[in-house]
Amino acid sequence: MNKKTTIYDIARALGVTVSTVSRALNNVPTISEATRKLVLDKAKELNYSVNKLASSLSSGKSNTIGVIVPTMQIHFFAEAVHSIEKELKKHNYSLLLYQSNESFEDEVNGVKTLLEAQVDGIIASLSLETQETQHFQEVINQRKCLVIFDRTHKDIPAPVVKLDDFKAGYLATQHLLEQGYKNIAFITTDKEIAIFQDRFHGFEAALKDAQISAREDFIIRGDLSIEAGIKGTEQILKSAIQPDAFIGGDDFTAVGIIQALKTANIAIPATGVIGFANQTFSSFISPTLSSIDQQANKMGEECAKLFLKMVKQKSPYEAIEQIVLDPILIKRKSTNRIDK
Amino acid sequence: MNKKTTIYDIARALGVTVSTVSRALNNVPTISEATRKLVLDKAKELNYSVNKLASSLSSGKSNTIGVIVPTMQIHFFAEAVHSIEKELKKHNYSLLLYQSNESFEDEVNGVKTLLEAQVDGIIASLSLETQETQHFQEVINQRKCLVIFDRTHKDIPAPVVKLDDFKAGYLATQHLLEQGYKNIAFITTDKEIAIFQDRFHGFEAALKDAQISAREDFIIRGDLSIEAGIKGTEQILKSAIQPDAFIGGDDFTAVGIIQALKTANIAIPATGVIGFANQTFSSFISPTLSSIDQQANKMGEECAKLFLKMVKQKSPYEAIEQIVLDPILIKRKSTNRIDK
Repeated sequence: MNKKTTIYDIARALGVTVSTVSRALNNVPTISEATRKLVLDKAKELNYSVNKLASSLSSGKSNTIGVIVPTMQIHFFAEAVHSIEKELKKHNYSLLLYQSNESFEDEVNGVKTLLEAQVDGIIASLSLETQETQHFQEVINQRKCLVIFDRTHKDIPAPVVKLDDFKAGYLATQHLLEQGYKNIAFITTDKEIAIFQDRFHGFEAALKDAQISAREDFIIRGDLSIEAGIKGTEQILKSAIQPDAFIGGDDFTAVGIIQALKTANIAIPATGVIGFANQTFSSFISPTLSSIDQQANKMGEECAKLFLKMVKQKSPYEAIEQIVLDPILIKRKSTNRIDK
Repeated sequence: MNKKTTIYDIARALGVTVSTVSRALNNVPTISEATRKLVLDKAKELNYSVNKLASSLSSGKSNTIGVIVPTMQIHFFAEAVHSIEKELKKHNYSLLLYQSNESFEDEVNGVKTLLEAQVDGIIASLSLETQETQHFQEVINQRKCLVIFDRTHKDIPAPVVKLDDFKAGYLATQHLLEQGYKNIAFITTDKEIAIFQDRFHGFEAALKDAQISAREDFIIRGDLSIEAGIKGTEQILKSAIQPDAFIGGDDFTAVGIIQALKTANIAIPATGVIGFANQTFSSFISPTLSSIDQQANKMGEECAKLFLKMVKQKSPYEAIEQIVLDPILIKRKSTNRIDK
C-alpha cells in the first residue's frame, strides 16, 4: 500500500471533506481564506506533494503533460510511456495519454485536445499516416514544450529521441550471416516512415559488406501484421530458390512468418526468423523469437529528461537536441543454428 | 489515407493559416467576426466534423472524455479502451487516457487531472489498491458523467459494466472437470477485488456441484504474474498428491505455471492449464493456452453507450444501470485431454 499522504489524510486530520481540501489546494475562489490557510498548513505539515503545490502556485503551469502514441497495443510504446510516467512523476507531473491509432486526422485532433486541456507540453511519436506536421508547429507557437520520439519527421523543429534504426537493420542481418544463413528474405512495410526505411537500408548495407546481393523476389513490401507475415512467406516460398532466413519488419510479422513456415513443414531454426521490437510475447512463443530491442525504457527516460530541461529554459527551442540510442540484439532460439 | 476533411483542407481552401482556422472553430476571441463566419461557412461546405462543431457551440461541452485504467499493458484494458474510442469517435468525442498503474494515489490524481482538463465525464476501472472511493464522488458532484467497468466497487453510485466473474470461474472449472481432470489447483491473488474473489467462488461452486472438495494445499493466494505462477506451481508440486490441472488467476500466471511444469518435465495437457483474460500471447505460446475471454470489445462498447445515454439525460444519475456480460470459454491445447 502507498504510504504517501493523500488529500484524504489531510481531510481526516482537519475533520473537513475531501472536496474542501481539493478546492483549497487548487485555489478555487468558493473557499474562505481561513480554510485555505488551514489546509495549506496541514498539507505542509503532512508533507503532501509539496513540490507540486509550490510549483503550480508560483508558475501557473498545469503540471500536466500530454503524450501521443500510435497505439498502446504496441509493447514498445506501452513501455516507453510507462518510463516517461515514472520519470515525470518524480517531478510531480501528471500524464494524459492520447492514441492516434495510426490516423493522421486523429493525431491532429490529439494535439488540439491536449492543448485545450492546458498541458504544459507534448511528447509524441507519429502515426504511420502522418506526412504533414503543421499541427505540431502549433505546440511550438504556443511556446509549449514538444519532444518527438522514435517515429520522427525532419520537418518538426523540436528535440528528438530515437533509435539508430539503420544499425538495428544491420545488426539483425549481421547476426543471421554469422549464424551461417545466406539467402535472407525481408517482409516489411511500404510506408515511407524513416525508421522502417532505415532498418531496410541497414539490411542492404550488411549484405553488401558480406558481398551478398539481395534477391528482389525475397523482399515483400506491404503491411506489418501476423497476416502480412503469413501471406508474405507463402509468396516467397513459391520462388525457385528458397530463403534460409526471414526478417520480419516487426515481431507480429515475424510471428506470421513462423506460423507459415510451420504450416509448410519447414523447420526453425534450420530456417531462421528474426523480428524487430522485442514484444512481450517474443520470449513465450515456440520457438522463442530473436529480435531487436528498441530500448523503450531508456527512450522514455530520455524524452522525460529533455522535456524537463526544456521546461526550465526561457527559450525552450534555442538549442534543439537530438538523442540517438543504440539498438540491442536479443538472440533466441529462432536463429540459433550454430550456437548450442 | 483518411479522406475526411481536416482543418488543413479548410485552411488551404481559404488561403489562411491552420491556426486561424483552429481559432475560428474554437471561438477564440482574437479572431474577427468576418473571418470566423468565413471559416464556419467553409467548414460546413466541406462537411468538416459538423456534429462536433454544432454540439460544442451549443452546449459549451468540451467533447472530451477521460478514461482511467490500471495499465494499458493488460491486453483486456487496451482492447476495452480501443472499443470505447471507436464508439465515442462516431459521436465526435476525443478520449484522454490516464493509467493509475495500480496505485490508489495515482488514481486520485488521475480523477483530479482529468476534471481540471475539463472532460465531460470519466469511464474508469479501479486500481488493485483502491478501497476508498470518495475521489469518484467528486465527478458525480460536478454533475459529470461517470461509468465504472470491470473492476467495480459497491460504494460508487454510478452505472457499471462488468463481467459475470462467478460464471467465469465456474466455466473454467467445469471445462476442466468435463475433460476428466479431478485434482485442480488454483493460483490467484490475495487482493480483495470483487472480480478475483468472484472467480474463486465460481471455482468452489463448480467443484461442489461435482461433489469434489477443494484441497487447501492446492490453493495459492499471492500475486498474479509469470513469477507467481512459477513459484506457486513449484510449491504445489511439493504436495504428497499431485494436481492434474492448474487454474491461473490470469494468463500471465498461467504462463508461469506452464513454464514450471515444463521445467519439472510434466506433460501438458496430461496435466491441464487454464487462465483468465485471453491475452494476445495466449494463442501463440506452446501449448496454446485455454482461457476465459472477458469480452473487452463488448464491454468498451457498452461503457461508451451508457456514457452517451447519460450525457443526453438531464439527471444522469436518476436511474443507475448495471450491465453484466457473459464470459466466453476459449478451448485450446493446454486443456485438450479428451477432445482430439
